[in-house]
Amino acid sequence: MKKNLTTQNVSPGKLSMIPMFYIAWSDGVLSPSEMKLIHKKIEQFDFLTEDDKKYLIRWSDPKNPPNDEVFREWSHIIKSESISLSKEQRKSLAEIGLELARSSTQYRNEEIWNAPKTLKALEDIERDMSINPGSLRSLTGSIRDVSESTIPSKESFDPKSLCAFLDGSQKETKDRMRKLLRDPLFKYQEIPNKDEFRKHTLKLMKALAKQGIGAYAFPTEYGGGGKVGRHITVFEMLSYYDLSLTIKFGVQFGLFGGAVYGLGTEKHYKKYIPQLSTAELLGCFAMTETGHGSNVKGLETQAVYNIEDDSLTIHSPSEAAGKEYIGNALHAEMAAVFAQLIVNEENHGVHCIMVPIRDKQGNLMPGIRVEDCGYKMGLNGIDNGRIWFDHVNVPKDNLLNKYGDINSEGQYVSSIDSANRRFFTMLGALIAGRVCVGTAGVNASKSALTIAMKYAMKRRQFAPKDGEQEMLIMDYPTHQRRLIPLLAKTYAYHFSLADLADDFIKCDSEEERRQIETDAAGLKAMATWHCTETVQECREACGGKGYLSENRFADLKADTDIFTTFEGDNTVLMQLVAKGILTEFKHSFHEEGFRAVMRYLVKRIGNRISENNPYSSRNTSLDHLLDLDFYREALRYRRDKLLITLSTRMQDYLKKRLTPHEAFLRCQVHMVALAKAYVEYKTLKSFYKAIERNTNPSEKKILQKIHSLYALTVIESDKGWFLENDYMEGSKTKAIRRVINKLCRELRPELNGLLDAFGIPEELLGAKIIL
Amino acid sequence: MKKNLTTQNVSPGKLSMIPMFYIAWSDGVLSPSEMKLIHKKIEQFDFLTEDDKKYLIRWSDPKNPPNDEVFREWSHIIKSESISLSKEQRKSLAEIGLELARSSTQYRNEEIWNAPKTLKALEDIERDMSINPGSLRSLTGSIRDVSESTIPSKESFDPKSLCAFLDGSQKETKDRMRKLLRDPLFKYQEIPNKDEFRKHTLKLMKALAKQGIGAYAFPTEYGGGGKVGRHITVFEMLSYYDLSLTIKFGVQFGLFGGAVYGLGTEKHYKKYIPQLSTAELLGCFAMTETGHGSNVKGLETQAVYNIEDDSLTIHSPSEAAGKEYIGNALHAEMAAVFAQLIVNEENHGVHCIMVPIRDKQGNLMPGIRVEDCGYKMGLNGIDNGRIWFDHVNVPKDNLLNKYGDINSEGQYVSSIDSANRRFFTMLGALIAGRVCVGTAGVNASKSALTIAMKYAMKRRQFAPKDGEQEMLIMDYPTHQRRLIPLLAKTYAYHFSLADLADDFIKCDSEEERRQIETDAAGLKAMATWHCTETVQECREACGGKGYLSENRFADLKADTDIFTTFEGDNTVLMQLVAKGILTEFKHSFHEEGFRAVMRYLVKRIGNRISENNPYSSRNTSLDHLLDLDFYREALRYRRDKLLITLSTRMQDYLKKRLTPHEAFLRCQVHMVALAKAYVEYKTLKSFYKAIERNTNPSEKKILQKIHSLYALTVIESDKGWFLENDYMEGSKTKAIRRVINKLCRELRPELNGLLDAFGIPEELLGAKIIL
Repeated sequence: MKKNLTTQNVSPGKLSMIPMFYIAWSDGVLSPSEMKLIHKKIEQFDFLTEDDKKYLIRWSDPKNPPNDEVFREWSHIIKSESISLSKEQRKSLAEIGLELARSSTQYRNEEIWNAPKTLKALEDIERDMSINPGSLRSLTGSIRDVSESTIPSKESFDPKSLCAFLDGSQKETKDRMRKLLRDPLFKYQEIPNKDEFRKHTLKLMKALAKQGIGAYAFPTEYGGGGKVGRHITVFEMLSYYDLSLTIKFGVQFGLFGGAVYGLGTEKHYKKYIPQLSTAELLGCFAMTETGHGSNVKGLETQAVYNIEDDSLTIHSPSEAAGKEYIGNALHAEMAAVFAQLIVNEENHGVHCIMVPIRDKQGNLMPGIRVEDCGYKMGLNGIDNGRIWFDHVNVPKDNLLNKYGDINSEGQYVSSIDSANRRFFTMLGALIAGRVCVGTAGVNASKSALTIAMKYAMKRRQFAPKDGEQEMLIMDYPTHQRRLIPLLAKTYAYHFSLADLADDFIKCDSEEERRQIETDAAGLKAMATWHCTETVQECREACGGKGYLSENRFADLKADTDIFTTFEGDNTVLMQLVAKGILTEFKHSFHEEGFRAVMRYLVKRIGNRISENNPYSSRNTSLDHLLDLDFYREALRYRRDKLLITLSTRMQDYLKKRLTPHEAFLRCQVHMVALAKAYVEYKTLKSFYKAIERNTNPSEKKILQKIHSLYALTVIESDKGWFLENDYMEGSKTKAIRRVINKLCRELRPELNGLLDAFGIPEELLGAKIIL
Repeated sequence: MKKNLTTQNVSPGKLSMIPMFYIAWSDGVLSPSEMKLIHKKIEQFDFLTEDDKKYLIRWSDPKNPPNDEVFREWSHIIKSESISLSKEQRKSLAEIGLELARSSTQYRNEEIWNAPKTLKALEDIERDMSINPGSLRSLTGSIRDVSESTIPSKESFDPKSLCAFLDGSQKETKDRMRKLLRDPLFKYQEIPNKDEFRKHTLKLMKALAKQGIGAYAFPTEYGGGGKVGRHITVFEMLSYYDLSLTIKFGVQFGLFGGAVYGLGTEKHYKKYIPQLSTAELLGCFAMTETGHGSNVKGLETQAVYNIEDDSLTIHSPSEAAGKEYIGNALHAEMAAVFAQLIVNEENHGVHCIMVPIRDKQGNLMPGIRVEDCGYKMGLNGIDNGRIWFDHVNVPKDNLLNKYGDINSEGQYVSSIDSANRRFFTMLGALIAGRVCVGTAGVNASKSALTIAMKYAMKRRQFAPKDGEQEMLIMDYPTHQRRLIPLLAKTYAYHFSLADLADDFIKCDSEEERRQIETDAAGLKAMATWHCTETVQECREACGGKGYLSENRFADLKADTDIFTTFEGDNTVLMQLVAKGILTEFKHSFHEEGFRAVMRYLVKRIGNRISENNPYSSRNTSLDHLLDLDFYREALRYRRDKLLITLSTRMQDYLKKRLTPHEAFLRCQVHMVALAKAYVEYKTLKSFYKAIERNTNPSEKKILQKIHSLYALTVIESDKGWFLENDYMEGSKTKAIRRVINKLCRELRPELNGLLDAFGIPEELLGAKIIL
């Protein structure tokens, strides 16, 4: 009775797996290697007869899909039975299979079928098939109408515990800041007028200073907290809140305070730190000029030493020499001014000098001109301004003299001979700023994703059929594809920036410092670009609601937009990274001839491909595509190959008598590509290390999944390169696309937990749509 | 005397080409096919001896580059001669070569060397080698110090004439708007307070109406201008100015006026159009609800017909049924309200009803509740609000009854039987809005690019060497790569949107209307995404200056951000496009069996590849990569293949008994890819047609170059797909990258002209940095 096939005449063994098979084939994404594994398991199941096994194995061969007739039979079986699973029970296809099995007339051996290990075995297969949770609905939908379209949103781990893991060693400070920022004082206010907004921001900064938080970065003997790590953490946590305050805090304590502490000496610490760390002395960091932003070395402001009265004259020789975008310029009493230090008519390069710009009453000092930068795209709580100096006299002692000084004979002295090296050492003060801005970018991404995804798990639009409930927008594949990979990237950058901050805090050698400088430049650039992209995508994902100020994206977007520029323009920073990598690369082989080394490397990298290929380049098995080693190998290969080809190109150009500058120009785009590959590989390693560190099995598992999604997204977005270089074949990149979709689906029920693990207080998110 | 080789002992023939060869080899981007062409030409030059030819051909073989010694000789020759070209003369390597030739002791035959055709022949070769204009500097730099690093910025065409070509048939209206908007009334003002800003915007809108501009879209018998094309042009030109005014204008005349004109009948035209087109009657377009944005069909607002008094009762049954984001909500007297029309307890779907919401004094009418949407990311000159209706009674005549009416017996009547088709016909009113928003996106991109690129042609940063002048940032390859392809895309979308607007104006059949609906949805989405990307990139390219409100990006970015959402969420629109393409595809073959058609198509597309491959997939010759047919073929192939594979997948899912909705979900990402490929191909065709239309040789040539850059950029950004599908090999995609770089360099001196051709008045750009 083929036509009226029901569970009556099908064996319980077959029935137990038909629901899974039905869905798996509809999905159509079973890979041969997945199936091999599944067949092996089926062979071993004692609850199946030999006939069952033959049948099931026959109809699960990817090369030989079930024909229409078989499909129709399955569909009929599923529909003909009124499965009695309640909403809560309707959890897995395995359970539905068992229920079907029990309704067979051939049902015997109750104890085997009811044994927990049978259910476990079936669920194991279901997992191997990695069936789309949404498919469950389409199956149960065909059993009876289900008006509920929600995918059960239950994470497989404890978000609180994962949050503690993400918080890491700074958990205490983070919790303190969470509590502090929930104080009613910090309640969000809409203040369109910039002058009022600036006043408000100043008030909040002073409130933070009162809590002793501004002093964290400085040694305890000057009233500080003696913990740079805590300072970075505070900045990080502030970036969950209004970013004007975050940046105002960064300018006062990080940049201004950092200049005094990093470039000054004992006398300056004593004089300034106790006052500045409590915000009694407000200061600004006057480096950038209108004419010179990225090219700090070319600053025009002069600091001329006058031997007659042992003083320095600070002067802006032109309009374009005015300091520009200076945060705190309208409030500050003191400026840390970067200027060309000229002693005995000799220019010793850029140095930093403390210049009073206002008296205690807030009146400008003589020779100082300040102009408001006016409204900006965002961060209007910050008083950015321009400052010019007209022959302003300050005592010689105001020179921050850690790396360069004028002795009592009026001669320039420095512990660093090379002017170039001295310059870069002094600029090292910017590293902390870059670590902070990168982290702020990641945290702003967390806020944006939390708002957009929590909204998407509430917001419904379009019903599968008229009369049915509309679907949650988070259940649309396009919505998953645009947001979930960004969440994975955000996790990834969280870990790499945490590592960077750790390295920075522990750093105690010149070599390490250089390495950190490279990493900080690269991570700042990549994390802030990621932030711009993420906030944009999240805004769009919330539609019109995302455009209203009440839902926070307006500020998030406008405030973070400058992150890609300040503390170093990203494109310029990426070139710095590439230069750093090239230099280190040359250093590590300086005793051998460059050519010989290159030949060796080209050979090695060639071998590496041939070892992997052709097998690896074609390997589309799920195991391989979820293998952490595959990612590491692929991203390392890309970095190395880009490095070697860049070096070779550079050498070729130089050989052809191009100036280094010309050679550099021709390789500029290549350099940016290398820097990107470098940062993405570094980030992958940090993520991997974090997984290794984690000791909780369910957290490890979810982190691995996110790690896979991050890595595959990185590979996919540069798949053109991998294909061009024959590292992968088209079949593999196509398989990667499918695995990314699969991972997005699998992560869907975990999203709520993954967002909660960021531990952002609702008050700080400040978005009406998710209340 | 190898060591002291000078021009003394080298033949004039060799000397004439050494500068070119030197630079070409430094560049290292000569392709074999380029060289073949060059060799052919060299063979034919009568000013060269046989020995010269042998020498020149020998040292221009890409497989056999000149060795170090030859290179050193060339460098020495160039440096040893003090070339006497003045700044103006230092135009081409060909001229330098001739100068060198003249200094040879073997120099004879003055008449041959001074013949214009000799210079022309050499310049011809120089063009074939497509030498980087920047290289000229590195060469002349090695002759003597050149402090000027500017690449001559002289376009090869007349920008005014190209502007007229871009303006097209609407030139008169465009020029009128250019003049009008330069009136002091429209001087930019910074108004942070939203209420004041709204008042100001309203004032400007009324000023426009006074000029008769609001009436353009309506028939002359009701006081209108009778030219829809001019209405679209006005919107387009307004989008060079403050976008709040643009949108306010669009809401009043396009949406509100468009609803009356598109959905109403005679009686409504007479009653409302004369007043609304002069802005005496302010109106809003109340479609979107909080609960239903993209899913308009699911709107909750009800309009219930009361047979007793022949009236309609408008009611919002829930909070979420409130109308949301309604522009003009705080100013309007009348609302065109979209609601479910219920007659005799039967729901006839969404219809539009005129509902008075305020009296002439501006007081709310009974039953109306309005709430301010508050501050938004941008467009704060628009008074967006929410509106709820509490059993508001209006006469039956207020129903805009073009497609559905209630007759005198109190029965619902419609000329369109299918409720679904009726719904989509009424929504057709949105097409004009989509054409307008797409165009506004393109024009905002033009403004952003003009500001960013003009700044980059003024702004200098970093010198090649200490003491030299710093370079213009537009001369950095990374800067060219990030901006010039966006300029090419902007030109491309300019042409495709102009075509779309033309099609829309001329449309007079149902079939055409459906086609235009698809195109408008797709172009609106792609052009506005392009806008978001371009404005962002331009802001970053201007660094900190880009962040200051005085330079316009703050507004450009904030105001255009919502373009990707309003008039239809882009991702939803892209699915609409894919559905449109699929439907049309099925229609065109409906008489044959789907499977048979598919088999035929798969075969045909297969043939198309095999005809091209393997030769075409590996063809890296410059001629091929600059061939317009290559682009057309490639983009058409991508569109067709995505369409066919999508259809096949859909059919497979349906065969497996998935519901159409499930099948659609699984193909959602694929659908978006198809829609993108469709729009990019369509845009390519429009660009091509524009080139065909142009009759000026120098404009044709520059447009071809931009067209090539657009097409290659599109291909490169999806090169993963082309490689995956074996349409191209890695060698070809790598060659494409080089050609893109080459095109960027070649377009560099043309940029100023290409920007001027947009014809945006400086006052409207409103950016201090380029003054």
